[in-house]
Amino acid sequence: MGMTISEKILAAHAGKEAVVPGELIQAEVDLVLGNDITSPMAIREFEKIGVDRVFDRNKVALVPDHFTPNKDIKSAEQAKQVRDFAHRHGIVNYFEVGQMGIEHCLLPEQGLTLPGDLIIGADSHTCTYGAVGAFSTGVGSTDMAAAMALGEVWFKVPESIKFIYHGKLPRWVGGKDLILFTIGKIGVDGALYQSMEFTGDTIDALSMEGRLTMANMAIEAGGKNGIFAVDQATLDYIKPRAKRPYTIYASDPDAHYSKVYEWDVSRLEPQVSFPHLPENARPLSQCGSVAIDQSIIGSCTNGRIEDLREAAEVLKGRKVNSNVRLIVIPGTQAIWRQAMHEGLFDIFVEAGAVVSTPTCGPCLGGHMGILAKGERAVATTNRNFVGRMGHPESEVYLAGPAVAAASAIAGRIAGPEEVGVK
Amino acid sequence: MGMTISEKILAAHAGKEAVVPGELIQAEVDLVLGNDITSPMAIREFEKIGVDRVFDRNKVALVPDHFTPNKDIKSAEQAKQVRDFAHRHGIVNYFEVGQMGIEHCLLPEQGLTLPGDLIIGADSHTCTYGAVGAFSTGVGSTDMAAAMALGEVWFKVPESIKFIYHGKLPRWVGGKDLILFTIGKIGVDGALYQSMEFTGDTIDALSMEGRLTMANMAIEAGGKNGIFAVDQATLDYIKPRAKRPYTIYASDPDAHYSKVYEWDVSRLEPQVSFPHLPENARPLSQCGSVAIDQSIIGSCTNGRIEDLREAAEVLKGRKVNSNVRLIVIPGTQAIWRQAMHEGLFDIFVEAGAVVSTPTCGPCLGGHMGILAKGERAVATTNRNFVGRMGHPESEVYLAGPAVAAASAIAGRIAGPEEVGVK
Repeated sequence: MGMTISEKILAAHAGKEAVVPGELIQAEVDLVLGNDITSPMAIREFEKIGVDRVFDRNKVALVPDHFTPNKDIKSAEQAKQVRDFAHRHGIVNYFEVGQMGIEHCLLPEQGLTLPGDLIIGADSHTCTYGAVGAFSTGVGSTDMAAAMALGEVWFKVPESIKFIYHGKLPRWVGGKDLILFTIGKIGVDGALYQSMEFTGDTIDALSMEGRLTMANMAIEAGGKNGIFAVDQATLDYIKPRAKRPYTIYASDPDAHYSKVYEWDVSRLEPQVSFPHLPENARPLSQCGSVAIDQSIIGSCTNGRIEDLREAAEVLKGRKVNSNVRLIVIPGTQAIWRQAMHEGLFDIFVEAGAVVSTPTCGPCLGGHMGILAKGERAVATTNRNFVGRMGHPESEVYLAGPAVAAASAIAGRIAGPEEVGVK
Repeated sequence: MGMTISEKILAAHAGKEAVVPGELIQAEVDLVLGNDITSPMAIREFEKIGVDRVFDRNKVALVPDHFTPNKDIKSAEQAKQVRDFAHRHGIVNYFEVGQMGIEHCLLPEQGLTLPGDLIIGADSHTCTYGAVGAFSTGVGSTDMAAAMALGEVWFKVPESIKFIYHGKLPRWVGGKDLILFTIGKIGVDGALYQSMEFTGDTIDALSMEGRLTMANMAIEAGGKNGIFAVDQATLDYIKPRAKRPYTIYASDPDAHYSKVYEWDVSRLEPQVSFPHLPENARPLSQCGSVAIDQSIIGSCTNGRIEDLREAAEVLKGRKVNSNVRLIVIPGTQAIWRQAMHEGLFDIFVEAGAVVSTPTCGPCLGGHMGILAKGERAVATTNRNFVGRMGHPESEVYLAGPAVAAASAIAGRIAGPEEVGVK
């Protein structure tokens, strides 16, 4: 029987001809990732193992991005632990404040996540790299520690679910809307420990940014990973970035899927996920009137240049509602700079937004825009759990950049057309 | 007997012909300022007074700048209290995230602090506005509350000290060096409850930015206020900004001063104040080799366009040392934007710095660059007290923008010449 992309990658990294779902394997990893929250715990565990050095100093990436530039003494101590470890072990891919960005925006940009790779990271949104055809998944800090020492990790080979999307997406509808719609359909455990394979003509036409956004949120449906076949768009993205060889895998025509979902999305509306679960997705027209206090455009989900361009298109020549704080957080220094050069910062600041240095910021209730009791935010982030962005009685509505920008103008959840964008 | 500028402003606002040092007066204020830390307490006190409204909704300025965009739930709650109060009372000069900046950079920029004004603010660096010829001083939150209700505040008229500076400042030496030198000479209580009047040909040639920096740190010598005579530079700064009339006062030739200091500063070196007091000022050549972990360019002391230009001149074409985080924090949105348009952000980011949205940030241990145990920062901020920027065992070295920039490159306290700037 044929295999899926995910199965082929796992087999190759386990040194096997083939694997089947449910099989336990020990697999070599191409990259082990940690951030300023998860790495300190992993470092403590690593030091207990008693090895002298990491398995490969080129294959560990440490990115202090959650509470950086540091917001308090505790986060400064955590960042220092990571920094000291990185220096002690000569970690090549340590990204200090100044070189850094949000891990899941930064690593693909730096060409560190390539097709056919097996990547683990002590961060749940490590699944992002499936956008470039890698098998990539989040692990706990202990697994990160073991992988830093041994270069290996064990897996139970997941079943795969195939998602097929048809049709040309309407204007203002993108990857974020596709994934919110999908999670809305299948629920937050709809792909529990499964590989989510995204396919169809809609996907073929989707930008790399849109794919990164979709893969990023596979975990929000419980997925072990999200993955896309490599095509010309992938190669155009990868080729100028890759500094090592990579392998392209494709799913066999007779590969086994536990489920297949097939949707026509040619009339899909922008989606908004209501509190407090990503699965509470609604088409924009059914959102009613929801006043907001804050709008966040950024995060590992939607902090890329295409996202910022989309927001700027909506904000250009308009003003943020006086009841709303609009905070724009580019994903990396390179994105920050590109947005500046493209004139997007002028549009943002003219509209009344602030532009942050790259950071995960408020997405996880970190800093740079935390909500008070009773406040509501529209955010291009990935989770709207209770208290995720601040006070337990605050609310987060997930959306794409166009809706987040339009809502900032309207002062309530709204689409671009509602604020006069043609 | 003649009066000083400060005495004349106090007399005018107390409805008197003249005042003398030591006299208790009740004076009308032109502006009452509060920020996100001090206003919530003032608002609670205000509400106890039982008046319906603020004395003049045009003469209260509320600027959430210390922990904004909010770093945690507590700071979000504080900002919300200020926001709700501002909306409820129709406060004209409430500056939301997006319009905001660091209070002491923002209010002069907005033309809210004018010559001859009497200004109080619940923030110790309210003394900044002496640079434009206002009598301006920090008060507690209770005084702020009373002033918001009544438009008046009581003062003991301070004695005045005259500082006379002679000579053309050497390259890379500016207002920050003058004030650190001065505090180094007289100590942190050298001007306790006195008015510090800055004069001399050096001052005549000093930019408004340099004067704002000097006045800003009057409190670090214990001064009640710092003040400058209005001259053409002041008028050039004020005229495009002022939206109401103002009065220019000058000290009488026979005004009384409790002390007069007179210095030739034509050979002054850049100054660095060592931990843990601003009075520990040393000329750069006597600083020895002090390795640093962080450099901060910004704050109400040195977050203005001239400061950023000076830093950029040093950083241009150079790289931040790999052991240093360089964080640049423009003082207001307008400064942020101007720096961007002048190409300074390109220079900063190219060098390996990050650029923050305007905030007081790490200066007071707020956020955006807090220090871990044992870490050292050079900062263009105003206080280097124990634990001021983070851990009680961290250290802050105060300096001007040129030294902060050069130190970021060298990885240790250094001047521009030491990193090859001509």
